[in-house]
Amino acid sequence: MAATIAIFREGVSDDAVARTVGTLREAGHTPVACLIGGRRLLIFDSDDSPALVERLEGLPAIAQTMLALDGSPLARRFDSDIRTVVDLGTAQLGNGGIAVLAGPCAVESAAQLRCTATEVARLGAAGLRGGAYKPRTSPYSFQGLGRPGLELLAEVGRECGLPVVTEAVDETSVTEVARYAQVIQIGARNAQNFALLRAVGRTRRPVLLKRGFGATVDEWLAAAEYILAGGNGAVILCERGIRSFERSTRFTLDLSAVPVVKRLSHLPIVVDPSHGTGRDYLVRPMALAAVAAGADGLLVDVHHNAGAALCDQDQALGPADFAGLLDDLGRLAKGLGRRLTRPASAGSLVG
Amino acid sequence: MAATIAIFREGVSDDAVARTVGTLREAGHTPVACLIGGRRLLIFDSDDSPALVERLEGLPAIAQTMLALDGSPLARRFDSDIRTVVDLGTAQLGNGGIAVLAGPCAVESAAQLRCTATEVARLGAAGLRGGAYKPRTSPYSFQGLGRPGLELLAEVGRECGLPVVTEAVDETSVTEVARYAQVIQIGARNAQNFALLRAVGRTRRPVLLKRGFGATVDEWLAAAEYILAGGNGAVILCERGIRSFERSTRFTLDLSAVPVVKRLSHLPIVVDPSHGTGRDYLVRPMALAAVAAGADGLLVDVHHNAGAALCDQDQALGPADFAGLLDDLGRLAKGLGRRLTRPASAGSLVG
Amino acid sequence: MAATIAIFREGVSDDAVARTVGTLREAGHTPVACLIGGRRLLIFDSDDSPALVERLEGLPAIAQTMLALDGSPLARRFDSDIRTVVDLGTAQLGNGGIAVLAGPCAVESAAQLRCTATEVARLGAAGLRGGAYKPRTSPYSFQGLGRPGLELLAEVGRECGLPVVTEAVDETSVTEVARYAQVIQIGARNAQNFALLRAVGRTRRPVLLKRGFGATVDEWLAAAEYILAGGNGAVILCERGIRSFERSTRFTLDLSAVPVVKRLSHLPIVVDPSHGTGRDYLVRPMALAAVAAGADGLLVDVHHNAGAALCDQDQALGPADFAGLLDDLGRLAKGLGRRLTRPASAGSLVG
Amino acid sequence: MAATIAIFREGVSDDAVARTVGTLREAGHTPVACLIGGRRLLIFDSDDSPALVERLEGLPAIAQTMLALDGSPLARRFDSDIRTVVDLGTAQLGNGGIAVLAGPCAVESAAQLRCTATEVARLGAAGLRGGAYKPRTSPYSFQGLGRPGLELLAEVGRECGLPVVTEAVDETSVTEVARYAQVIQIGARNAQNFALLRAVGRTRRPVLLKRGFGATVDEWLAAAEYILAGGNGAVILCERGIRSFERSTRFTLDLSAVPVVKRLSHLPIVVDPSHGTGRDYLVRPMALAAVAAGADGLLVDVHHNAGAALCDQDQALGPADFAGLLDDLGRLAKGLGRRLTRPASAGSLVG
Repeated sequence: MAATIAIFREGVSDDAVARTVGTLREAGHTPVACLIGGRRLLIFDSDDSPALVERLEGLPAIAQTMLALDGSPLARRFDSDIRTVVDLGTAQLGNGGIAVLAGPCAVESAAQLRCTATEVARLGAAGLRGGAYKPRTSPYSFQGLGRPGLELLAEVGRECGLPVVTEAVDETSVTEVARYAQVIQIGARNAQNFALLRAVGRTRRPVLLKRGFGATVDEWLAAAEYILAGGNGAVILCERGIRSFERSTRFTLDLSAVPVVKRLSHLPIVVDPSHGTGRDYLVRPMALAAVAAGADGLLVDVHHNAGAALCDQDQALGPADFAGLLDDLGRLAKGLGRRLTRPASAGSLVG
Repeated sequence: MAATIAIFREGVSDDAVARTVGTLREAGHTPVACLIGGRRLLIFDSDDSPALVERLEGLPAIAQTMLALDGSPLARRFDSDIRTVVDLGTAQLGNGGIAVLAGPCAVESAAQLRCTATEVARLGAAGLRGGAYKPRTSPYSFQGLGRPGLELLAEVGRECGLPVVTEAVDETSVTEVARYAQVIQIGARNAQNFALLRAVGRTRRPVLLKRGFGATVDEWLAAAEYILAGGNGAVILCERGIRSFERSTRFTLDLSAVPVVKRLSHLPIVVDPSHGTGRDYLVRPMALAAVAAGADGLLVDVHHNAGAALCDQDQALGPADFAGLLDDLGRLAKGLGRRLTRPASAGSLVG
Repeated sequence: MAATIAIFREGVSDDAVARTVGTLREAGHTPVACLIGGRRLLIFDSDDSPALVERLEGLPAIAQTMLALDGSPLARRFDSDIRTVVDLGTAQLGNGGIAVLAGPCAVESAAQLRCTATEVARLGAAGLRGGAYKPRTSPYSFQGLGRPGLELLAEVGRECGLPVVTEAVDETSVTEVARYAQVIQIGARNAQNFALLRAVGRTRRPVLLKRGFGATVDEWLAAAEYILAGGNGAVILCERGIRSFERSTRFTLDLSAVPVVKRLSHLPIVVDPSHGTGRDYLVRPMALAAVAAGADGLLVDVHHNAGAALCDQDQALGPADFAGLLDDLGRLAKGLGRRLTRPASAGSLVG
Repeated sequence: MAATIAIFREGVSDDAVARTVGTLREAGHTPVACLIGGRRLLIFDSDDSPALVERLEGLPAIAQTMLALDGSPLARRFDSDIRTVVDLGTAQLGNGGIAVLAGPCAVESAAQLRCTATEVARLGAAGLRGGAYKPRTSPYSFQGLGRPGLELLAEVGRECGLPVVTEAVDETSVTEVARYAQVIQIGARNAQNFALLRAVGRTRRPVLLKRGFGATVDEWLAAAEYILAGGNGAVILCERGIRSFERSTRFTLDLSAVPVVKRLSHLPIVVDPSHGTGRDYLVRPMALAAVAAGADGLLVDVHHNAGAALCDQDQALGPADFAGLLDDLGRLAKGLGRRLTRPASAGSLVG
């Protein structure tokens, strides 16, 4: 496919966008409108339509058009000035800050979630992570609390002033997660579940897209493209380790992917050192390394009673270790001239 | 979980099974009934229920009970005499024969499908493969014909006397595929899409489950367990290559997985040398190798005009090469004391 | 480098070759003479020497010249008619037959070696393998008998009428192995030990070059090039498994490498299913698969008392299993129109 | 093997050590003496010798004995207080500082080496790296200047006040490198060349041991054990990337190996982001990440004219980028409460 991206001028009116879409539809095209890095744009298949592209360029609403030959034109860094910043509600991700999203791997009970969430909020997390739907290798493992887990997350997130990140595993759960949480997570095992990617592309919630553990960076960007091509430009990439032959860790955390993504894409990228190593003692050094490599944030498993977690207990940090991690991150950030992201109203909410 | 598998005597009545299920439910358990290798059985969580297990053993309908400690108790070879044979309608898979399932990667048109299907039927295929829903790395690649493709497959399969294998990619397509095709395929990118696995586990159609290219054999069996635990015992495993560092092939076809699966599981296993290598010139040698390693069958991309295929054209065989492959397979089978599986009525249908 | 390969006419005289070498040296080149597939040839750096190449083409001794742009010009299949057949003394490898090289992983004692060797010879092996120098991951593991082991191998090989294949691990052992054995093995851990490859390139003994478990096919051919570029054209490639994430086998046997090598190179290729899987129960199916994929032979660990082997005991076959393997191979070979290679005089020697 | 490690008291006399060695030899053992983390110790095979171990414990020269069951007893962190600090002459490695060893991948000429070395010394490198013997995948690639390259390295290192790190590729070059350089490097392709490891174990020069790109952390420590078991305790481990399926980088830099090694071993570890990624633009972020993960130092390819390097030119930094890297490292180090290691006399030498 030869696609064309048409970028509107900043401050373009809804009317002007609608008129441009109409023009393309009349010419037999099916343009997709997307908001990327604060800029409105259209992408459409422009094979054999040079005259049409020329006509678009002449429109006052259009800032520029560009040919997009690659398979992931919207996920690629098509314009060096455009960087996606994702709004989490009370905080932003991708604006230079370091956003730590922390919480239990799985929501187990109101007490467990509230206890852990209060701690991570107090210590300085920018978001609350926690699974209500848990994709598990075995059908007999704990599969999460489901809908009641979502309700708990929404309630506790509100109490703590933290935006909630939680996973959707099929189309039904996409709708539910979009109702209860600020960010929809797509897990590693669904990273090339294209039906699910299309489903979250139809929502207007930010999506945290984990890399498949068998997926190349190119395939990961192509997975993001499924979401962007649905018109949802708010994608956060999350590196969480790939498969290799090494056996001292559960996965091999591919931190080179951070600067590779920064070069290839405008999307923000966070790192999950908990799932990426599967070992609690590796979370702190790999979290620091991820930030030093340029990550926009972290996803960290924290459990108020780490040894008793129902899911992935070898990798969860207890509150004391999480506090130590945030201290170290703060000092590292200072050295690098960056800072930890705090939710806008966190102080008043958890005071 | 400590689970118990209770195997019924051969020829057990439906009533006796229902009574046993009732007994377990009354005791607070949620048993799953499954038909594996021609034997009816129940699996249920038996933690802290030694008395109940003892009671089951005393029932005349029960042949034996066994403790299933592993995470994939139904997919594992829990009894050395039980082997699953999957009925494809006009042919069987897993009975010692070599079943070749062939056809185009994607259904492109009635002419293309009919032309290719007639050829593979004439040459001796035991089933027709072809994709109506195509999960593609890029959202802009050809995604398959969808429902009309299914209708074509059903029609052409009937004409050629071949059972149809085609992929489902979400819950909606599971229902459709189950209506039009004999076997539901789950692709490599959905190999750990547990919602989808549960959905096909609720059907009573045979399922061809591809191995995820980043999945271990253990994880693959655990994925099969999701289907079996839904009560659907007709699972065919399909090795289709894993990711490694080697670059002369698209994937590394892990043929050792064939005898490993034969040892660990009662399920039949086929090999896809087309996707597993991504190179047409490797299909013949790797197909022969797969059968020599003990595979129950093959999945082969064939296109009547291989160079013009819309999908994965580097790997499709033309009819002449496919004929050569079947000749070689026939001679190999003879050497090994095996034979190629032909559909029951193929002679009359395509004569 | 732009290199030129000049192939002499069949039956060329030593004098004519020497004169051509002289011509090139006078022109400031350093040609390497090599015997590949029964054809004598020269390779030399021909940058900026078009006139010289033209002059060579005019020589009556030269059949043809060809530009070799790739990094492994001698290992690549530079002429579709040329295939290397390696002479093991009493048998040949690469002539269409299936040569089984069998014996203990490590030589442990005269009794052990003689007992195992007599069995494998009687059952139909074409060569005796066994390690006198054993590269072991740990310095405290049994490192082999060294020189006395070589003497035993030579003696027992002679008794059984079998050519001996054994590993050299440094320059000193190359000299010793070249004295006592018919074939020098280079192990996987030394597969890119270029000093060692140059050393065996200087001998005129056949070299069995194992693939490094972290090496691509391209790197493996480049390693072979080090030997060929020393003038030694008798290289046998040996696939022995690569590293992947799969854990049910010690390595992932990459059988696709067999037809890939057949296409890219004129060198014969054998497969080691014992080290390639590390599991005795996988040796038979993977040996059959290797031959079905087109391998010229096999390297098989056999121990007269497999459970008591001092090295890699999980993978050694006992004599009964080895006999079963040869039976199966014989039937497979028949189906494929091939035959097992027997040493020329094996009948009389072991009768 | 059950081995015993006997650690001498600090300040033990040579005589006392010799007497202990004598005692063990008389009892039929062959103890190896090694200096690890400033402590003198002996390791010997203690199978069936409980009385002997008890006797050693009673000796006033012995601080403690410990059973070493694992395959790499000397490389493992057998005592939590013992950490190896390697003396490079004008600087130390493993003492908490961050030692940057920089220079050209290959020594090409006196002008090139002097120009690059002067720059890296001026900018703050702690050592000069450069290859005189270059193991190259193809026999026709530039193989290094050899002995003249070593002489240049020695001369230029002296001029700049920097210790020299350079690779040995066989036993002959070990002797030469030990004469001309402060640190002997073992490359990734020789990481399991056990003859070479034994050879450097017999020298008393520090050894920088690169990880094989197909080697697990366990195998890497076992390779180090070959050096330690020769009595040479001055081993620096160097992570330089492993093979994986990802193709945006030449290798996958496994930074998790840094904290894993810190936990398992007392040996210092450095990281080579240049070879580990193969891309110049990834060197800076991955160098920072390596230090944040806890690395004791870095090995960085620098070339005064990076685009014209004869070897691995895609990964070399020019002087300006190297200066930027050191600035960033300095700020990162400050944040982490660490500092860059400078050679003792660097100021006066390069002023």
